Amino acid sequence: MAENKEEDVKLGANKYTERQPLGTSAQTDKDYKEPPPAPLFESGELSSWSFYRAGIAEFMATLLFLYITVLTVMGVNRADNKCASVGIQGIAWAFGGMIFALVYCTAGISGGHINPAVTFGLFLARKLSLTRAIFYMVMQCLGAVCGAGIVKGFMEGPYQSNGGGANVVNHGYTKGDGLGAEIVGTFVLVYTVFSATDAKRSARDSHVPILAPLPIGFAVFLVHLATIPITGTGINPARSLGAAIIYNKDHAWDDHWIFWVGPFIGAALAALYHTIVIRAMPFKRSS
Amino acid sequence: MAENKEEDVKLGANKYTERQPLGTSAQTDKDYKEPPPAPLFESGELSSWSFYRAGIAEFMATLLFLYITVLTVMGVNRADNKCASVGIQGIAWAFGGMIFALVYCTAGISGGHINPAVTFGLFLARKLSLTRAIFYMVMQCLGAVCGAGIVKGFMEGPYQSNGGGANVVNHGYTKGDGLGAEIVGTFVLVYTVFSATDAKRSARDSHVPILAPLPIGFAVFLVHLATIPITGTGINPARSLGAAIIYNKDHAWDDHWIFWVGPFIGAALAALYHTIVIRAMPFKRSS
Amino acid sequence: MAENKEEDVKLGANKYTERQPLGTSAQTDKDYKEPPPAPLFESGELSSWSFYRAGIAEFMATLLFLYITVLTVMGVNRADNKCASVGIQGIAWAFGGMIFALVYCTAGISGGHINPAVTFGLFLARKLSLTRAIFYMVMQCLGAVCGAGIVKGFMEGPYQSNGGGANVVNHGYTKGDGLGAEIVGTFVLVYTVFSATDAKRSARDSHVPILAPLPIGFAVFLVHLATIPITGTGINPARSLGAAIIYNKDHAWDDHWIFWVGPFIGAALAALYHTIVIRAMPFKRSS
Amino acid sequence: MAENKEEDVKLGANKYTERQPLGTSAQTDKDYKEPPPAPLFESGELSSWSFYRAGIAEFMATLLFLYITVLTVMGVNRADNKCASVGIQGIAWAFGGMIFALVYCTAGISGGHINPAVTFGLFLARKLSLTRAIFYMVMQCLGAVCGAGIVKGFMEGPYQSNGGGANVVNHGYTKGDGLGAEIVGTFVLVYTVFSATDAKRSARDSHVPILAPLPIGFAVFLVHLATIPITGTGINPARSLGAAIIYNKDHAWDDHWIFWVGPFIGAALAALYHTIVIRAMPFKRSS
Repeated sequence: MAENKEEDVKLGANKYTERQPLGTSAQTDKDYKEPPPAPLFESGELSSWSFYRAGIAEFMATLLFLYITVLTVMGVNRADNKCASVGIQGIAWAFGGMIFALVYCTAGISGGHINPAVTFGLFLARKLSLTRAIFYMVMQCLGAVCGAGIVKGFMEGPYQSNGGGANVVNHGYTKGDGLGAEIVGTFVLVYTVFSATDAKRSARDSHVPILAPLPIGFAVFLVHLATIPITGTGINPARSLGAAIIYNKDHAWDDHWIFWVGPFIGAALAALYHTIVIRAMPFKRSS
Repeated sequence: MAENKEEDVKLGANKYTERQPLGTSAQTDKDYKEPPPAPLFESGELSSWSFYRAGIAEFMATLLFLYITVLTVMGVNRADNKCASVGIQGIAWAFGGMIFALVYCTAGISGGHINPAVTFGLFLARKLSLTRAIFYMVMQCLGAVCGAGIVKGFMEGPYQSNGGGANVVNHGYTKGDGLGAEIVGTFVLVYTVFSATDAKRSARDSHVPILAPLPIGFAVFLVHLATIPITGTGINPARSLGAAIIYNKDHAWDDHWIFWVGPFIGAALAALYHTIVIRAMPFKRSS
Repeated sequence: MAENKEEDVKLGANKYTERQPLGTSAQTDKDYKEPPPAPLFESGELSSWSFYRAGIAEFMATLLFLYITVLTVMGVNRADNKCASVGIQGIAWAFGGMIFALVYCTAGISGGHINPAVTFGLFLARKLSLTRAIFYMVMQCLGAVCGAGIVKGFMEGPYQSNGGGANVVNHGYTKGDGLGAEIVGTFVLVYTVFSATDAKRSARDSHVPILAPLPIGFAVFLVHLATIPITGTGINPARSLGAAIIYNKDHAWDDHWIFWVGPFIGAALAALYHTIVIRAMPFKRSS
Repeated sequence: MAENKEEDVKLGANKYTERQPLGTSAQTDKDYKEPPPAPLFESGELSSWSFYRAGIAEFMATLLFLYITVLTVMGVNRADNKCASVGIQGIAWAFGGMIFALVYCTAGISGGHINPAVTFGLFLARKLSLTRAIFYMVMQCLGAVCGAGIVKGFMEGPYQSNGGGANVVNHGYTKGDGLGAEIVGTFVLVYTVFSATDAKRSARDSHVPILAPLPIGFAVFLVHLATIPITGTGINPARSLGAAIIYNKDHAWDDHWIFWVGPFIGAALAALYHTIVIRAMPFKRSS
């Protein structure tokens, strides 16, 4: 309910203009029709070129994402003096900046996920079919392995001795801290994805999806600023898996479950928050 | 008066095209009608779902704001060597970047305040009712306490020994300096909020509110660059209160009034400047 | 001539679609009429409220500009260790970021100059009257003095012992180097101002002036990255004058002429480049 | 084929809405007509003012690009302590930020290439004629030489003793690593150029080319974050040539081929990827 009220609540202007009591089922939907939820399986999808093109785009984007970010991490870790490198802040920019640029580039082709947790959250909100969700996740993980592999190809020895960009819970934090950081961090990211792309809903404005990559990239940057000291920041299971496979040492594998369980819980919570609080789906459906 | 003249004063093009003498009451208002001021109380508002949803959105945004920013501050303070952290500049990015992303995400739901000083300034300009203003401030403070609490949950000991992200007037500055820095800093922020969202006024352009979060986030970033050495930068009473409650040490509470009085004075001055100088309200109303 | 050809020269798409020989006077001006040059004096302007409002907006913006930037410079200079401050890069962000935010905020009121060199360049291109140009420059200089004065008010002793944010030619560079750096640096800024706002010309798009502050702010940031080691970077005579008056030491006054002569030469060259090369005015006018 | 399907694949919304089997030749092209490939030679182009103006704009943009970036590199290299400079991250911002600002400024005049590798990639995709491609490359290289020359003019001795901003393969990496880094880095850049400007294709939105400079500038920034430790980052043969000619030492010339071969291979791969995967040209043409 009260779906259509978002129109009159603009930035810095929250004047109350409705007289609609809480809990009524009055629903106008003037400008906007909620699209029906995506079906779990769509057989036709599998024989469409755009489906495979989307998967290739996710593969390529995740490959480039891991290549640039892991190479940046290596550059910082190899430097004798952090001041003579781009620093930890530079690492955060690499992750956030790549997500900005890649979401901008692939949004029109695949939706620009580049992250199984994002795919999972959007699947829970029924924005894409199960078939497509699984296909995307597989392509993202394959891309991540290739991206990290190219970095290792440039510097076999230093790669192994400098941690390979793999996510682990750092000294001074418990596994519970690491899991918590991954949950809240992924919540921040998927919350931003939902909020930034949902604005499109009410707007006839085609430029909303063009601007959305900026806050999404910033969300990734910000979570890295905050949680690099704790886990190196995963919030993207494909990124964690790709680095772990190429690095392939026990201490990385020991913590690896955290970087799948945490992001998936965070993404689910963000989908829940968006569906219940922001979109008020339960109230609306029952009306 | 001269309200409609903003149309012909564009960026880098200030050609004079009017012949209207100063102080006349000629008022055309071709494209734009000033909305009437929000009433102090609107009883219907309290029974609307969008009112509570807006409050929840403010709560969640302030929670995430404190979580990311205080965690970043902790990461920098815990590092043996500032060069091996994201640095003071990284802290400034965390505050400004979060405001950018969160204003972008919540602008369509609650107006994207995330700061009692912003709410206070907009209330003075009669952009929202007193009921809504108080509700927002309470939700912002609750969110801030929860956000800082989560950070403490990850690192109880280090949180207390590293200042907990609480605002205090630093050594080398008087309380007067701190108060002044908070007043001018909040003026910069609320001035930007008014200017960036007011542009919307004259435009039929729906993308103005979508772009406004960028200068607003930058304003927060810039004030942090300048005043972190003085007070750690408050300019947001909810942020200061949340950190103070969770940190809960005397020296933080001693200065705490500065982080309410300063921001509220700064916000009031910005509202005054905007109303009198930019919107020329007194002249206009008397016409 | 060839004015209307910009329409078919888009980003990454330079396909040749014309058959118009070089030097002909064929001029179509389908979509765009060059506005007539601003007159030198417009008596009516002086009795318009929007004229004075624009001046107040320039005063306030330059005040806030100096306040934030000089305070940031002081914070970096006072730190025992540059790593424990926002660093030189943080200073560059302060200058560029403030210009971005302030141009965004004042573009609709005064055109968003905040810099006598920008006003001078736009005056040479006849975008504003001489009266307005002089009024803006005076208000910018007054605002700059006040902004730097507030910073000194917070820290009298440290202000004087840390250089006060004044521009001087640094050790290791000649005065000629300093002048050259100011000329080219201001050229970069005013070139960006002309190019970014000129795009508006061909477009019916109201969002061009809304996006233009971003490249303009970036230009200021970039020139600071490059020339802080040489002169501390002026490229804005009001900023240099304000800091020099409040700092008021001989070695700052000795070099002060550089920060007026350099920026004015750079701005004039940018106006010339834009008028002759990009707008092809001489060819066009003679047609 | 399936060209028109991009319309219904938006950010975060990949619902399958087609029933079109893979490989069919059904092609609707409702909203968009692929422009015909640019001819290799267009004699009329050579007698058009806009052709020469575009070349001058490329010259000036590359001159300013080298001036700001090489001066920033010199500032960092001359500093006794990297912490007292803008740092390696500041260098990355200088390169990426200049490309953002310059592409924004010149997009409407020349297409905003400022890089022979970009020109080469767009030529392979037949977006501009061979005549224009060669003219642009020559002007870019001339501009780069002038830009680096101005920097040397400010500091003859320090320029030579601090590497002159020339690209070389750094100690610890093989020439193969350097070539690989240039190939993938240029791929990232040209991939972004194609993707960001191609979005325009489907949109009637004139603001796409206005927003595209941001991801393109970010791509340059990100590649610098990752590969400055390896080669100093070329991904722009004009930039590498200009610095090499002005620096003119053997060890820079020895590696110089890498900074032409690498970027051209990377650009060709990006053009290939875009044409085959994203635009599905081979399938489409045969239909």
